[in-house]
Amino acid sequence: MAEPIVPQDDSTGAFIPGPPVHRAPLGQGRLSGLRFAAKDLIDVAGTVTSCGNPDWAQTHPKAAATAPVITTLLQAGAALAGKTKTVELAFGLTGENVWHGTPLNPAAPDRFPGGSSCGSAAAVAAGLVDFALGTDTGGSVRIPASYCGLFGIRPSHGAVSLAGIVPLAPSLDTCGWFTRGAALLSGVGEVLLPGGGGGELSGPLLRVEEAWINAQPEVAEALHRALEKLEQMRGRAVGVRLAPEGIDSFYDHFRTVQAEEVWVSHGGWIGSANPRFGPGVGERFAAARATDPAIAAPGRAFRRMLQARIRPLLAGGGVMIFPTSPCPAPLLTASAVEQDIVRQASIGVTTIAGFCGLPEVTLPAGRVGGAPIGLSLVAGRGHDRALLALACDAAAVLGLPV
Amino acid sequence: MAEPIVPQDDSTGAFIPGPPVHRAPLGQGRLSGLRFAAKDLIDVAGTVTSCGNPDWAQTHPKAAATAPVITTLLQAGAALAGKTKTVELAFGLTGENVWHGTPLNPAAPDRFPGGSSCGSAAAVAAGLVDFALGTDTGGSVRIPASYCGLFGIRPSHGAVSLAGIVPLAPSLDTCGWFTRGAALLSGVGEVLLPGGGGGELSGPLLRVEEAWINAQPEVAEALHRALEKLEQMRGRAVGVRLAPEGIDSFYDHFRTVQAEEVWVSHGGWIGSANPRFGPGVGERFAAARATDPAIAAPGRAFRRMLQARIRPLLAGGGVMIFPTSPCPAPLLTASAVEQDIVRQASIGVTTIAGFCGLPEVTLPAGRVGGAPIGLSLVAGRGHDRALLALACDAAAVLGLPV
Repeated sequence: MAEPIVPQDDSTGAFIPGPPVHRAPLGQGRLSGLRFAAKDLIDVAGTVTSCGNPDWAQTHPKAAATAPVITTLLQAGAALAGKTKTVELAFGLTGENVWHGTPLNPAAPDRFPGGSSCGSAAAVAAGLVDFALGTDTGGSVRIPASYCGLFGIRPSHGAVSLAGIVPLAPSLDTCGWFTRGAALLSGVGEVLLPGGGGGELSGPLLRVEEAWINAQPEVAEALHRALEKLEQMRGRAVGVRLAPEGIDSFYDHFRTVQAEEVWVSHGGWIGSANPRFGPGVGERFAAARATDPAIAAPGRAFRRMLQARIRPLLAGGGVMIFPTSPCPAPLLTASAVEQDIVRQASIGVTTIAGFCGLPEVTLPAGRVGGAPIGLSLVAGRGHDRALLALACDAAAVLGLPV
Repeated sequence: MAEPIVPQDDSTGAFIPGPPVHRAPLGQGRLSGLRFAAKDLIDVAGTVTSCGNPDWAQTHPKAAATAPVITTLLQAGAALAGKTKTVELAFGLTGENVWHGTPLNPAAPDRFPGGSSCGSAAAVAAGLVDFALGTDTGGSVRIPASYCGLFGIRPSHGAVSLAGIVPLAPSLDTCGWFTRGAALLSGVGEVLLPGGGGGELSGPLLRVEEAWINAQPEVAEALHRALEKLEQMRGRAVGVRLAPEGIDSFYDHFRTVQAEEVWVSHGGWIGSANPRFGPGVGERFAAARATDPAIAAPGRAFRRMLQARIRPLLAGGGVMIFPTSPCPAPLLTASAVEQDIVRQASIGVTTIAGFCGLPEVTLPAGRVGGAPIGLSLVAGRGHDRALLALACDAAAVLGLPV
């Protein structure tokens, strides 16, 4: 099969610098005729995976093999159109990358695209590809999807192979994807997700109160209108509270658990290579280095408690619903302090699915001040396919792209 | 807290060469007073993780941080007594290591201990420690537990953090543990496993016909006596068949999926470091290198089909039951061909839980020709704690160490 012509019009700056990384389909199937991009945290044989950091690229060899998630997509008929920018080592939520340039947010050009899978979100939002792979440890698919007005999924932890994907915090890492419409979000899932998880989310919608309270009032208001339409389809939502500690504590616990694993993953390389990092990234690695295991222990205990609380809520096919992010994307002019406030409030929410390994789909269900904002649906672990089917129904009800 | 005295009487050769890697408890809790060992695939800060291969050890720095799974055990009161031998890069099932010496199987000294977590199994079986951590990709906890007469668990995929553990095939890798009694197997689970998965395996015992047919007749006979006792507790077992293709095809599909991920994980290092490997290991890596993604695709498709078939069987709290391994440990004098036949027949069975991410507990329920043989219980994903509770009940009924 001849290499397809895959023009890479990159006015948004979604793709990494250098020669485009193209790969032709390896077969025909569900995704024939479609083009996708992959975050430059995912291996393609014969190329160096940069992880968005020049010193990482210089100290690592070319990948010997292609990550199975990419091979599977190629075998299903899709063509790889390029590798996309990422926050360095996937450790950040705004989408900033000082080495490669921060991608434009096509849906709100004066705002950050969100990260760490910033380039994948930008490439899809700009229509450069049909879908794109990202990774999500603490929100790195869900947040840029919300910021760029896209559909996005963080699958159940472990549902999609992470072989050939550079780890950040393995107990939290997942590989997800972005699309402009609900049907393709589900179509990619048919190719990548485990079998047997379809067809039975018959429980109630569960309105997670902490996440709604945590959202900016105008975000909650905009998404509440979407919730009301979904209630007409699924019945009245039931209010639930997950933890009396409040959502600020979610962030605190997530941060310590993530920091412990981040330093386990990258402390050795940072110690030996002494790499340069852009603003924010270096500070977060320094904080990870300084995290005492004694501090992480309460985080792990809280995680187990949250799992125990949520599991029975979802056991009967219930679906949690809440704003994906508490606010739209920060303005590009936002200060570091303002960015950090948004980061903390956002991770409080993304911790719900993250700590529990649950699948979360975000739908571009609202706009606030001219910027997109996402609405999330979260189901029990392993119910990814059923959740994607529900997202298709919800998109139809909400008048979103199907 | 003072470093405890942890004598390392290692007549079985379970521990890696060199100064013992001891770590004192970091707190008091459920595991206070207990000592454990950890497979030398798991990071301990300040030491080099050898993965059982001298060239790996020489080309990798000291770990910057301790794997969270070890830190969690230390915080629960246990003391680390040492690092144990592993098959090189965890890629093998007999437990042989030509560089460090193959550990003795204390339960059957003329036979292999099983691997790849050979040292951990030997250390527990010899009574050198109370429990030990291993990893299980294709059977590396379950098989040595069966061979050495131990309780062992391969948890649900993703249930125990793999941060700081060298990967083999990430979509299959898990971290499990060995004990001599059922209660401690469960006790370690209380510390390491997610919350909320307890208390409801109320479905039938499911006798997986392929695995019983695949077992040597004397193994099936010995374990059938145990099954009959469990039927008195749980009701008559229901026979199920998982795939008309037969268990030989399970091995074929597992092999290709594993090989693809193995080469993604280690192809880069092997290409740049050109390491020496012991017999068998080098051949398996060469085969992994030669695996065409086009060959792995049917394996991934079979995996999805098996997941779809098994999921409804276990949805109502059913528990699959079958011989952990088709035969007792091979004799140390077994030829390479004989070892490979055992390997293929064993992986056919271990693929059931492995491909589906399911928790599997093996109980030392039988003996054949003077050697131990394990009986496995497999539950739905995430039901690890309930499965451990069931294993305790089963051990009591079978008269095994509780």
